Amino acid sequence: MKLTNLFTKTRKTVPADEVSLNAQLLIKAGYIHKEMAGVYSFMPLGLKVMENIRNIVSQEMNQLGSQEIFMTTLQDKLLWEKTKRWDDEVVDIWFKSELKNGTEVGFGWSHEEQMVDMLKDYVSSYRDLPVVVHQFQNKLRNEIRAKSGILRTREFIMKDLYSICETEEQHKEFYDKVAKAYERIFDAVGIGKDTYFTFASGGAFTDKFSHEFQTITNAGEDTIYVNKKKNIALNEEVFNEDVLDLLKLDKKDFEKHRSAEVGNIFSFGTEKSETLGLNFTDKDGVSRPVVLGSYGIGISRLMGVIVEYFSDENGLVWPKNVAPYKAIICSIGTGPEVTKESEKIYKYLTDKKIEVIYDDRDVRPGEKFADAELLGIPMRIVISEKNIKDGKIEIKDRTKSKAEYLELNQLDFIAEKLN
Amino acid sequence: MKLTNLFTKTRKTVPADEVSLNAQLLIKAGYIHKEMAGVYSFMPLGLKVMENIRNIVSQEMNQLGSQEIFMTTLQDKLLWEKTKRWDDEVVDIWFKSELKNGTEVGFGWSHEEQMVDMLKDYVSSYRDLPVVVHQFQNKLRNEIRAKSGILRTREFIMKDLYSICETEEQHKEFYDKVAKAYERIFDAVGIGKDTYFTFASGGAFTDKFSHEFQTITNAGEDTIYVNKKKNIALNEEVFNEDVLDLLKLDKKDFEKHRSAEVGNIFSFGTEKSETLGLNFTDKDGVSRPVVLGSYGIGISRLMGVIVEYFSDENGLVWPKNVAPYKAIICSIGTGPEVTKESEKIYKYLTDKKIEVIYDDRDVRPGEKFADAELLGIPMRIVISEKNIKDGKIEIKDRTKSKAEYLELNQLDFIAEKLN
Repeated sequence: MKLTNLFTKTRKTVPADEVSLNAQLLIKAGYIHKEMAGVYSFMPLGLKVMENIRNIVSQEMNQLGSQEIFMTTLQDKLLWEKTKRWDDEVVDIWFKSELKNGTEVGFGWSHEEQMVDMLKDYVSSYRDLPVVVHQFQNKLRNEIRAKSGILRTREFIMKDLYSICETEEQHKEFYDKVAKAYERIFDAVGIGKDTYFTFASGGAFTDKFSHEFQTITNAGEDTIYVNKKKNIALNEEVFNEDVLDLLKLDKKDFEKHRSAEVGNIFSFGTEKSETLGLNFTDKDGVSRPVVLGSYGIGISRLMGVIVEYFSDENGLVWPKNVAPYKAIICSIGTGPEVTKESEKIYKYLTDKKIEVIYDDRDVRPGEKFADAELLGIPMRIVISEKNIKDGKIEIKDRTKSKAEYLELNQLDFIAEKLN
Repeated sequence: MKLTNLFTKTRKTVPADEVSLNAQLLIKAGYIHKEMAGVYSFMPLGLKVMENIRNIVSQEMNQLGSQEIFMTTLQDKLLWEKTKRWDDEVVDIWFKSELKNGTEVGFGWSHEEQMVDMLKDYVSSYRDLPVVVHQFQNKLRNEIRAKSGILRTREFIMKDLYSICETEEQHKEFYDKVAKAYERIFDAVGIGKDTYFTFASGGAFTDKFSHEFQTITNAGEDTIYVNKKKNIALNEEVFNEDVLDLLKLDKKDFEKHRSAEVGNIFSFGTEKSETLGLNFTDKDGVSRPVVLGSYGIGISRLMGVIVEYFSDENGLVWPKNVAPYKAIICSIGTGPEVTKESEKIYKYLTDKKIEVIYDDRDVRPGEKFADAELLGIPMRIVISEKNIKDGKIEIKDRTKSKAEYLELNQLDFIAEKLN
C-alpha cells in the first residue's frame, strides 16, 4: 500500500482523557479511533492487526476440531433468568434495552447461556458428543471505569470457544488440549516467553481453580506470583499457604509481577447444562447433563497487551506475525532514480505477496523515519540518492538502532527475511 | 467435511411462529438458529454462505479503492442529536441504554454520523480527497414487526460503504462506479437477471431520487414497476406521471412486481458534513463541506433473498458461488467398496481445494437424498455398489431432476465442473 492512499494520518496529540499507553500510541499512529471513553473503532491498520491475530487464533481453533458459528448480540432475558445471571446485582455489566412491545432484552457480554440453549436443538445422544464450537463476536460490557485503553473496553472482539462432553474425563482431555493451543497462540503473537498458565479462583464447579493466561506487563490490572522454574503462576487471590500446599509448591520460588489476562479456560461442570436442560442419552440409555467448558481470548485486548509489551519510546513495535505490513519503504528525496528504485522494490515485494507500505509522501526524511518508528513496522527499507550511488539498500529492524547495508540486487535476501 | 462431524442436523419442524419461507428452510437445514423473533444466529453452514457473499462484496470494495475499517455498535448520543436523528419520534428503530454514570448511549442501526465525525480527524485538505471506506458490521434495529425471516431482522450484518468527495462531479463519478460494482455483485451471487436499478424517493438532498437495487421475489416487502427494455425500475412511491415525464419514460412499458431491496446507494450532498463540520480546504484555500455518499448491502438479507429466489419444494438451492460446499458425496450402503470409493473421491476433491461434504452417516439412502436436496448443495455425487459394479459415478445437479453417469475415472471432469 502506498502511504498517500491511506486515509488515516499519524498525529502528535491524543484526547486529553486518554491515559493508557496502548490507546495513546494506537491513536497517534492511526490504528484506532476513540468514539467515547472505553469505545474504540478500528482503522485500516488496526483492523489488519486484529485480522492477523484472528487468523492465528482461527488456525488453532480449526486444529482443535472446532466449528465456527456467529451468535447474536441481542440476548433473551428468560434464558439468563434461569441461570440467575440477569439480575444487575449479580452481573453488573449488562447493557439492557427493550423491544417495542416492552420485552426486555440484553446485549451479549458473554454467550454461555445462549450457546447451551442453542445446542439443545442438535444434541441428544452420546453419539453427538463431544461438540466444539467457537465464534469471533463483539461483546458489550457496561464497565464502570474504562482506563486501560483497549485492554478493558465497553465493546470488544472476543474469540469464545465452548466444548460439551460426555464425561469429566473427556472434558479434561479437551481442556488440556485447549491449554496447549493457547500456549501456541501466545507464542505465535510473540508474548509466549512472559505469558503464564495461571491458577485463579473463579467459581469453578468441578475443580478448585479456574485457569487464566497472564502476561507480565506493567499495564496489567492483575497481580500474579510467577514460578519460572515450573513455568506457572498463581493469581494473587489464590496465592496462600493452603493453595501452595495443595499444589506442593514453595512460596520462595515465586516472584510478584503486574500482569494482564490474555486468555481464560474454564470448567463449568454440569451446572449450567442441568439448569438449562442440555442433556444427552448415554450408552446405557440414561439421560445426563453434558459437561461444559468455555475458553476465551479477547482479540482486541490481546492486541493491546502486544502493544504494551513491545512498544518503546519511539512508538509501536509489532512482531512480524501480527504486523499490518512487514516492511515500510521510505524514499528519501524525489529524484527520478529514488522513485524508480523505490517502485521497483515495492513491486518486487508485493508481487511476492509480501505486504509492504511504500511511504511515497513528499515530506521531510525526519518525518518519514519518525512515522516508520511510530507505526511499528518490523523492517524499514531506505532508498536514497546516496545509497543508490553507493549501490546499496539500507534496511533497519524496528527493534535495532543500527541499519544494515545490502547490495541493490539483494532483494531476494530481503524477501526471505520478511517471509 | 464429513457430515458426521457437523454438529447441526436437519430437522422436520420449525418454531411455530416462523412464517417466512427463508427462515423455515434455513432452520430446517441447520443454517441458522432462531434466538428470538427477528433474531437469528448463524450456524457453520450459514456462516460459510455469509462469508462467501462477504468475499464477493469485499473484492468489489477493494476494486473501488475502499479501505476497510470496523466501527463500534455503541453510539454517542451527542453526535446524533446534532443531526436530529436521536429522537425516537424521528428514528423509531433505536435500541438505547445507559452507562453506569447515567449517560445515554445508542446501539448502531446505521453509522453515517459516526463515520463523518471520525473522518474529521484525518481529512483537512482537497489533497486528502476522495476518501472511501467500508465495513462489515452488525446493525441493531428495534423493528416493530419481524416476519420476513432474515430479510428483516433486529440484528444483521451489513456492508456499509461511504465516500467523501470534493465536488458533486467527483461524487457523481464515484456513485456511478458503485452502481456498476453492485451490479457485478448481484450477478456474482446469481440474482442479477431479476435485480433492477430502481428509482426511489428518500430524502436525497442533491437529487430528486435515491437509488435502490430491487430483486423480484414474492417474499419482498416492496412493490416496483419494472421496465425490462431499459433495465430499470421505479419504486411504487415514485411511480407517477411527474416522475415518468421527468425520466422520459412511458407508463405502458412497465410491469408491476413484488420485490426485495438488496442494496441502496445514496447521495447525502453536503448536508451532514455541514452539520457535523467535516470540511476541507479547497485548491483556492476556501473551506468547504465534503460531499457524502453512503452505499449499503445487507449481507444476511442478501442471503435471505437468494434463498427465496432459488429454493424449491425440496429445499434450499445455492448458486455455486455462495454455496457452503460445492458438492455432497452420498455413499449408499456400507460395503467396503462403497466406502473406499467415497473416501477416494472425497480425498481427490479436497486435495484440489474443492470444498465438499461427504455424507458418511449410517442412514437410509432416502434420508441422504432428502438432506442433500434440503441443504441445497449444487452437485450430488452418488457412490453405490450398483454404480461401482457398472464402473460409474452418478452426479446430479441440484437444479435438475435427472442424474448423469460418468466413468469412475472421470474425477477430473467433476473437479472441472465444480471449479
